Amino acid sequence: MAQFPPVMKGLSAFLYGGDYNPDQWLHQKEIWRQDMALAKGAGINTLSVGIFAWAALEPREGEYHFEWLDEVMDLMAANGMKAVLATPSGARPMWMAEKYPEVLRVNRMRQRELFGGRHNHCLSSPVYREKVKRINTLLAQRYKDHPALGMWHISNELGGECHCPLCQQAFRDWLKERYGTIENLNAQWWNGFWSHAYPSFDAVESPSPIGEMGSHGLNLAWRRFTTAQFCSFYEAEAEPLKRITPDVKCTTNLMSTYDGINYFELGKHLDVSSWDNYPAWTSDRRDAQVAARAAFCHDLMRGVGGNKPFMMMESSPTAVNWHAVNRLRAPGILMLQGLQAVAHGSDSVQYFQFRAGRGGSEKFHGAVVTHVNSDRTRVYREVAQVGERLRAVAPALGSAPENRIAVIFDWENRWALADAQFGLNGGDKGYEETVLAHHEALQRLGFGADVIDENGDLTPYRLVIGPMTYMLRPGFAERVRAFVAGGGVYVTTYCSGWVNEEDLCFQGGFPGPLRETAGIWDEETDALDETQRNHFTWQGKTYEIRDFAAVVHPENGAKTLATYRDAFYAGAPVLTEHAMGQGLCYVIAARTGSDFLQDFYRFAASQAGLRPLLEAPPYGVTCTRRVGDGGSFLFVMNTVPQQNTVTLPPCAALEDGTPLAGPYTLAPYEVLVLKE
Amino acid sequence: MAQFPPVMKGLSAFLYGGDYNPDQWLHQKEIWRQDMALAKGAGINTLSVGIFAWAALEPREGEYHFEWLDEVMDLMAANGMKAVLATPSGARPMWMAEKYPEVLRVNRMRQRELFGGRHNHCLSSPVYREKVKRINTLLAQRYKDHPALGMWHISNELGGECHCPLCQQAFRDWLKERYGTIENLNAQWWNGFWSHAYPSFDAVESPSPIGEMGSHGLNLAWRRFTTAQFCSFYEAEAEPLKRITPDVKCTTNLMSTYDGINYFELGKHLDVSSWDNYPAWTSDRRDAQVAARAAFCHDLMRGVGGNKPFMMMESSPTAVNWHAVNRLRAPGILMLQGLQAVAHGSDSVQYFQFRAGRGGSEKFHGAVVTHVNSDRTRVYREVAQVGERLRAVAPALGSAPENRIAVIFDWENRWALADAQFGLNGGDKGYEETVLAHHEALQRLGFGADVIDENGDLTPYRLVIGPMTYMLRPGFAERVRAFVAGGGVYVTTYCSGWVNEEDLCFQGGFPGPLRETAGIWDEETDALDETQRNHFTWQGKTYEIRDFAAVVHPENGAKTLATYRDAFYAGAPVLTEHAMGQGLCYVIAARTGSDFLQDFYRFAASQAGLRPLLEAPPYGVTCTRRVGDGGSFLFVMNTVPQQNTVTLPPCAALEDGTPLAGPYTLAPYEVLVLKE
Amino acid sequence: MAQFPPVMKGLSAFLYGGDYNPDQWLHQKEIWRQDMALAKGAGINTLSVGIFAWAALEPREGEYHFEWLDEVMDLMAANGMKAVLATPSGARPMWMAEKYPEVLRVNRMRQRELFGGRHNHCLSSPVYREKVKRINTLLAQRYKDHPALGMWHISNELGGECHCPLCQQAFRDWLKERYGTIENLNAQWWNGFWSHAYPSFDAVESPSPIGEMGSHGLNLAWRRFTTAQFCSFYEAEAEPLKRITPDVKCTTNLMSTYDGINYFELGKHLDVSSWDNYPAWTSDRRDAQVAARAAFCHDLMRGVGGNKPFMMMESSPTAVNWHAVNRLRAPGILMLQGLQAVAHGSDSVQYFQFRAGRGGSEKFHGAVVTHVNSDRTRVYREVAQVGERLRAVAPALGSAPENRIAVIFDWENRWALADAQFGLNGGDKGYEETVLAHHEALQRLGFGADVIDENGDLTPYRLVIGPMTYMLRPGFAERVRAFVAGGGVYVTTYCSGWVNEEDLCFQGGFPGPLRETAGIWDEETDALDETQRNHFTWQGKTYEIRDFAAVVHPENGAKTLATYRDAFYAGAPVLTEHAMGQGLCYVIAARTGSDFLQDFYRFAASQAGLRPLLEAPPYGVTCTRRVGDGGSFLFVMNTVPQQNTVTLPPCAALEDGTPLAGPYTLAPYEVLVLKE
Repeated sequence: MAQFPPVMKGLSAFLYGGDYNPDQWLHQKEIWRQDMALAKGAGINTLSVGIFAWAALEPREGEYHFEWLDEVMDLMAANGMKAVLATPSGARPMWMAEKYPEVLRVNRMRQRELFGGRHNHCLSSPVYREKVKRINTLLAQRYKDHPALGMWHISNELGGECHCPLCQQAFRDWLKERYGTIENLNAQWWNGFWSHAYPSFDAVESPSPIGEMGSHGLNLAWRRFTTAQFCSFYEAEAEPLKRITPDVKCTTNLMSTYDGINYFELGKHLDVSSWDNYPAWTSDRRDAQVAARAAFCHDLMRGVGGNKPFMMMESSPTAVNWHAVNRLRAPGILMLQGLQAVAHGSDSVQYFQFRAGRGGSEKFHGAVVTHVNSDRTRVYREVAQVGERLRAVAPALGSAPENRIAVIFDWENRWALADAQFGLNGGDKGYEETVLAHHEALQRLGFGADVIDENGDLTPYRLVIGPMTYMLRPGFAERVRAFVAGGGVYVTTYCSGWVNEEDLCFQGGFPGPLRETAGIWDEETDALDETQRNHFTWQGKTYEIRDFAAVVHPENGAKTLATYRDAFYAGAPVLTEHAMGQGLCYVIAARTGSDFLQDFYRFAASQAGLRPLLEAPPYGVTCTRRVGDGGSFLFVMNTVPQQNTVTLPPCAALEDGTPLAGPYTLAPYEVLVLKE
Repeated sequence: MAQFPPVMKGLSAFLYGGDYNPDQWLHQKEIWRQDMALAKGAGINTLSVGIFAWAALEPREGEYHFEWLDEVMDLMAANGMKAVLATPSGARPMWMAEKYPEVLRVNRMRQRELFGGRHNHCLSSPVYREKVKRINTLLAQRYKDHPALGMWHISNELGGECHCPLCQQAFRDWLKERYGTIENLNAQWWNGFWSHAYPSFDAVESPSPIGEMGSHGLNLAWRRFTTAQFCSFYEAEAEPLKRITPDVKCTTNLMSTYDGINYFELGKHLDVSSWDNYPAWTSDRRDAQVAARAAFCHDLMRGVGGNKPFMMMESSPTAVNWHAVNRLRAPGILMLQGLQAVAHGSDSVQYFQFRAGRGGSEKFHGAVVTHVNSDRTRVYREVAQVGERLRAVAPALGSAPENRIAVIFDWENRWALADAQFGLNGGDKGYEETVLAHHEALQRLGFGADVIDENGDLTPYRLVIGPMTYMLRPGFAERVRAFVAGGGVYVTTYCSGWVNEEDLCFQGGFPGPLRETAGIWDEETDALDETQRNHFTWQGKTYEIRDFAAVVHPENGAKTLATYRDAFYAGAPVLTEHAMGQGLCYVIAARTGSDFLQDFYRFAASQAGLRPLLEAPPYGVTCTRRVGDGGSFLFVMNTVPQQNTVTLPPCAALEDGTPLAGPYTLAPYEVLVLKE
Repeated sequence: MAQFPPVMKGLSAFLYGGDYNPDQWLHQKEIWRQDMALAKGAGINTLSVGIFAWAALEPREGEYHFEWLDEVMDLMAANGMKAVLATPSGARPMWMAEKYPEVLRVNRMRQRELFGGRHNHCLSSPVYREKVKRINTLLAQRYKDHPALGMWHISNELGGECHCPLCQQAFRDWLKERYGTIENLNAQWWNGFWSHAYPSFDAVESPSPIGEMGSHGLNLAWRRFTTAQFCSFYEAEAEPLKRITPDVKCTTNLMSTYDGINYFELGKHLDVSSWDNYPAWTSDRRDAQVAARAAFCHDLMRGVGGNKPFMMMESSPTAVNWHAVNRLRAPGILMLQGLQAVAHGSDSVQYFQFRAGRGGSEKFHGAVVTHVNSDRTRVYREVAQVGERLRAVAPALGSAPENRIAVIFDWENRWALADAQFGLNGGDKGYEETVLAHHEALQRLGFGADVIDENGDLTPYRLVIGPMTYMLRPGFAERVRAFVAGGGVYVTTYCSGWVNEEDLCFQGGFPGPLRETAGIWDEETDALDETQRNHFTWQGKTYEIRDFAAVVHPENGAKTLATYRDAFYAGAPVLTEHAMGQGLCYVIAARTGSDFLQDFYRFAASQAGLRPLLEAPPYGVTCTRRVGDGGSFLFVMNTVPQQNTVTLPPCAALEDGTPLAGPYTLAPYEVLVLKE
């Protein structure tokens, strides 16, 4: 059982609020006072301010205008609001781009970009780092004792990459640090291939469509370097803040499975992880899948932050404006969205955006307050209801899930898989969808799960699932072996254990260092096109196989549990079990549907001695548990617009103490929070 | 009733002819004499010459060769042909690009283009304007008294845009003129968003994929500026022509719904509007839709020219060469295509092209005379039949439609909608298709209609339809209010009245300044994906809704005529009626199919006291009326390859005087021209 | 009957082996000895070495390291292996790109590329040619007397293009040579169109998306020039090799229907043609089509090499890594793939690759030896079986097919057709698929066929088929006329005889110079969209028409054999026969399905007095015959995973002499080699 301190200084409640841009209303300041009234009316206690406000704070180089922010902070304090105060680096002012072109990014085609968009600064530019340091220092000094200051929000949705000469040099320095000699780099990247040996580090260029895109070693290094640059940039931003306000936590808002940064690395630098959650709710039965994906992302973002309480820094009070189809949300979805975050460990429910601007590209993005500037909208009323509910579940604050199952999602493995050429090309070979499918199967069975990467600690778990661990990072296979030997149940799949951390194939038979634990030799892997299927039968039921089917050979006493029905490898094993030490290792050699995954994980969890939080929940109902000093809380969520009947555990009570157990019929999108 | 003078000097007949490039046959001049004979044989009386002929007229800088054009003009005069004489600026000669690179365009990526294609000159280049002025002056001086000169054709299919430094400067000057101060521009473009405030006008750059694409204010201004540049360029071209030959009309050929220029602005500069009509006839029943779109475009092009007779400057005598599928046209389609233009107010039927070249990218484009160089082709025979028919309907020349219904199609609204992010993203949210759908419903009912933009005069009409008027341009809402108050019937839809001319949202509730007239408050708008539908019942019939559904609240005594059946807003109004003053305003709150639009406009037209030109025409038959000194002419067109029976009005007679009334069976693609 | 000498010096056996990169294992040389053992175990007798090895041979400018290659060559000789020794120009070393940027290509956008990929050198660069000459000379001098040297492999998969200033100049020189004067070029390219006349050769720029893409004359010239550059580059590479080792044959590996080079031109420079064969076997019934395409490509590659024995230089022992879907190959497919090559005239079966590298983008490409480094894989076992079979069929070595049917596939016609705008735009109008469809119809009937281009000699044939010969190259029509007059049967189709070699339309009626032989005038061509069909009946059977339908008029006594059923040209001929001299010319005026093509070619072959190799083979079974000093060999191939029963001719015997005739049931993928 773990109880964590509040994430925000001076606030012992679920954070409730959202992004707020008073700087867009400097010409119409009466709006500010209306904002305070509307925020309070909705139960809001925090607002994120200053994001993208650099041009308002420093309209000309060295000319600072904090007076409007002073006024906003004072107003917030006077109204009992806490500020998530942002550093303004998410978008630079135009004067800086004009005067110091080096702050502008260079794209893969080696073109220096013009001013525009956001998230567009060079990651290496000394000028930009200096300017950021200066304004962050001023912000910290000015507001360090302000009663409204509750947390730092560094930049915004860090992402992208830069290929300018400064970044090329930084890349080469990073490579030198990692590989020592160019000979070693050439060996690790297998540069004998196509005469690609570099004569020196100076010859290395970042990947480019007009240069090299096909060197897997280069691509992998570039992604690792970009992650390192973001970590370094984040640290440079945070330095004055941590120095001047050591008691205020820092974070930056992540974007779930964003491909460009290894969040498990960046996460190490955050005091608390936070993320922007934008499920594309459909208001129909497909919301079961929408919710399953959101649940996976919550667990991933919590994992990135070390499995402590995290923050849902952004979410939308109704349709966003950037999905292909932006449906309004049926009543109840907003409550589900907010409580689902809490259920998975968030200590905040925050929206983008509090008030919609009159212009700009996000003017029609969902907002608590729209252009009609009124509390008489449907959305405002639902926002207020969520606010009220958050106060009711306050005892759960600071508690955390305690899961005994972990699913592995590893950014470096993902990058390598996406680059790898075999089987089914195009896209990332379904890695993300596959990990999600395994995680979703657990959800459907009523289990909670953590999401970790290959560097994660396996010791807290009884069941660990590593789908498509194509790349085995250093030490991982050894830790899996120890985990199984010590009594754990490990599940591996096709396309696992093919390459080492430099994307060099293991010699001597896949799955390489996992071979002994897995108890199989993976000889070759078939790829099926959209019209082709294979099948297998296990425990009397027949399942379909698509996409990938590996031909594996059991070794060292591993047992074959099921075999292929079709193709030239009919009769070869598709599911094996290897008992090793106190534990078991299963191999799923082909890609199956969710029907098999659910049946298999019911079995595997039972082998691991685990029981679900709720027995046999109907489709669309998921559960989590948070445990802390306030007690143990079971969240039961109906994620579809149909009623669903569940059997509640005994000794459960609603947040107001009303006891509740046995059969219960959940209304559409209803969420129960049960004190156990 | 209006009668207009002939569009061409010295020709009181429907213009019949096409684009003609004798300059491609300078090495084989015997072709010219064959051309004259073939043209006369087909009833042709006009040829458009000189388009793209700059390199033939001025092969080296300052070295002019008009002698071949003299010869062609003389030959035309001798054969009774009139010339639509073109300025050659549609394509510049290569020597000019070599010597003066500034005449070459710079694309959005900021690359100076190489010589190539056509329509490719910078819109600002002083050199290019000077060169054009010089050659236009020489042309006007040389042919001002030539008997063949009938009209000026300025450049060709103006379009595209240029991002060179000269254009950037012109853009900044235009912005300064429009906004006065950079502070005002920043306010109007809501540049507080993402720190986008410009320190000065000098900092503004046109939209670019490597810079800013997401600033709606910038994008809108750039499109308005580009239109202004084309108007200015057109005027600069026309200046010597109008000065030297004040009795010869000028035009340029437009491209129906081309997105890049606000044709209602450019149209103000034309003496007569003209356009290039390329329907993709399918020779099957789908031609009903093909014809409906062509009819809409004719009405639009007529509207752009002030609802006077216009010209169909280009059309193809058979399949074009640039559609994805280029079907031959079944016999009769060519007659339909030509007479449909006349029916909608064209005083010309012109082809691209008279003779196909042996080489070049348009050598297989439909032509009156093909490579076989003979009058014994099917196409030639059909061309000759159309020529004969045009002489038979000569009394209709100079007459014009007198419609009491107007549909609004507004370029600036379209631009803003395409940029706007909400609901369904991608494309232009179906704006063009939606306006067409409303117009087509009127066609199917037997009504003629004008197409105007929000700046158009509403007073001639009894029924005005404004689909998706997302942007309300200045004064429009006030004129709608006066129109309704004075007894008009106005129809508005979902996604109307959201932003002002700068794309800033109206505060205080949509549809902003239209709210009182419409009698509703538009709270929120749902978007349905391809699998989702809603429904409603009106007057006993149930209709389907797709794409967009607004949740609106009736106010000020507006009546709900129909309500949603499904979704959380079931029971909310989908069709309302608001009586105001002497008139009525209807709101269609969701996107429906054509079944509803037809039923509704039958009702709404009746509310406006209007009767169709033909009662209940069968599917595929459409009608128009032209009225002038020559009388009143009813055009009845069968646009499908099946027979169709109609009930003709009494007192109708064929063009030869044969009386014709009551039931009549139209042959496939048959067109009747009835004197009333 | 023809018997050809062995392609490889010192080896009188089918070449069996593949690409081998010992240079990737310089750090792990024990692998080399294992390679020799594994190769021998699989019956391998040749390895292609040195491809892409430049950086290993010359790691720094002028510093050569042949010692490792010496060692490899010695090892091969010691183990009885022959080397296909490659020049290393397929990929340049990075030091060369750094020091001499001119060796880097410039793309169509006029960007100088960075170092990366392969096949990426400028085709004109004097520096590159000099460097290549130097290293080729050194290789030839060093290994001229080495017992392992069997053949030269020049560069690798030549392709792409370069737009640098050097190439622009070379292009202009080439144009000057071809056209003499700029006036002539302007006339041939029809540059009067759109004012495109060039003032001088210096003004010509290669095609570019930021310049000219629509000038058909320019595009065609650019492609012809690029072919000429590749021929010149190849000759420059070959010069020292041929000089120093005149007894060793040179080749370069082609890529079947690769669009960028006219292989019939390049083929003239090769001592023996060789190609890389990568069918996307599906392991299901669709393999019948996969095999049909492979057969067509074999025949084409043989034709490119002058219809002598050729080489299958690359093929994959199992799934490749770059198809969209990479299926494992069912047992038997590898044997089929290898023997199919032999059946069509290959004297080699070679793989890419012998051993998979640990890194690089091709590490998962099919290989004889995989990362498990063992002979105990399924693939290795099948490779060994193929090796054994090749020794059994050794008597067929050096023999060649003797076909009496030719199908025309012409690169220049293909380029012109792809550029032409008419009918169905997008893609190449189905040219390649159409030629394949005609060729496949012959395969299904049991005929063997040659593939030639319009410059090919027609005299060896009795039936010649020219599908869609849009462009008639000089002399072709005359040779067709003589062929028919002399008793041949010629088949032409829609879209034939429209333009001359400069893409200028024939005047006086299509098919231009073929008109008299064909006996028809082709007036106009309809294009049908995906939903539209026409039909016709011939010999009591009704067939479907799609895509293209020409309206033709029989002349000069031609007979109409079948007519259109639908559209306005119902009743017009769709199939005609024209008897001229001793022969016949057929016109197929529309695109049909394979059902008609098979029925028609059964008839046409009979008209030409030809009998199939096998009577009425079942679907999926194809045949070829090779004849030489060793006798006559009939190859009967079952290309599907189902059994198929055929009736073998009398007097046939298996390779071991076992007589075999009458009904025989082929196992899945079984190939018979019958001595006749």
